[in-house]
Amino acid sequence: MIAKTPTVPYYAVIFTSIRTDDDKDYVEMAEIMVDLAKQQDGFLGIESARDEIGITVSYWKDLESIKNWKENSEHIIAQDKGREIWYKSFKTRITKVEKDYEFHKSENEKK
Amino acid sequence: MIAKTPTVPYYAVIFTSIRTDDDKDYVEMAEIMVDLAKQQDGFLGIESARDEIGITVSYWKDLESIKNWKENSEHIIAQDKGREIWYKSFKTRITKVEKDYEFHKSENEKK
Repeated sequence: MIAKTPTVPYYAVIFTSIRTDDDKDYVEMAEIMVDLAKQQDGFLGIESARDEIGITVSYWKDLESIKNWKENSEHIIAQDKGREIWYKSFKTRITKVEKDYEFHKSENEKK
Repeated sequence: MIAKTPTVPYYAVIFTSIRTDDDKDYVEMAEIMVDLAKQQDGFLGIESARDEIGITVSYWKDLESIKNWKENSEHIIAQDKGREIWYKSFKTRITKVEKDYEFHKSENEKK
């Protein structure tokens, strides 16, 4: 789903990753982390897709919410396992959303 | 591939989309647009993944480069076809990258 985010400005964390072949506990942990992120103050939404690379974009109210999430103790365990087991490489980019616009095909156009 | 981007600040355009079932010319046009984007002034890199949704993040030197790319005449034709044919819905977010960091597993750790 495309995340429903508020009016700008807000923040986006772009996490781009290349996985290892080791899937042990990965899907389970990813689901737990998404559920946990959703409970954090300032969390606004998340979008994720993977084929050759994975891209997960999480949206946040402000930089403090992002910092708190990065330092969440359960999240730190997941981050450590990510570096040890699941990821060959990743890049995290913390960004401020300055402008956004969207398109939805009308029912009429869908036919 | 994870895009090799310069030191912050730079800009990221996050394009999240849900496709229609109509694939006509889509893959071809997507490839042409990536090739064309790479030729634009200020283009820094691109990352893309699709499963249930598609996420494409393109990276740019500044807002002017993004504006010029949005107004590129061939790109406008592709954008129009996107709304008419290929996309049920999409959201575009223009963001300023304020901080980034990365991880690469060392050869030693890979074993």
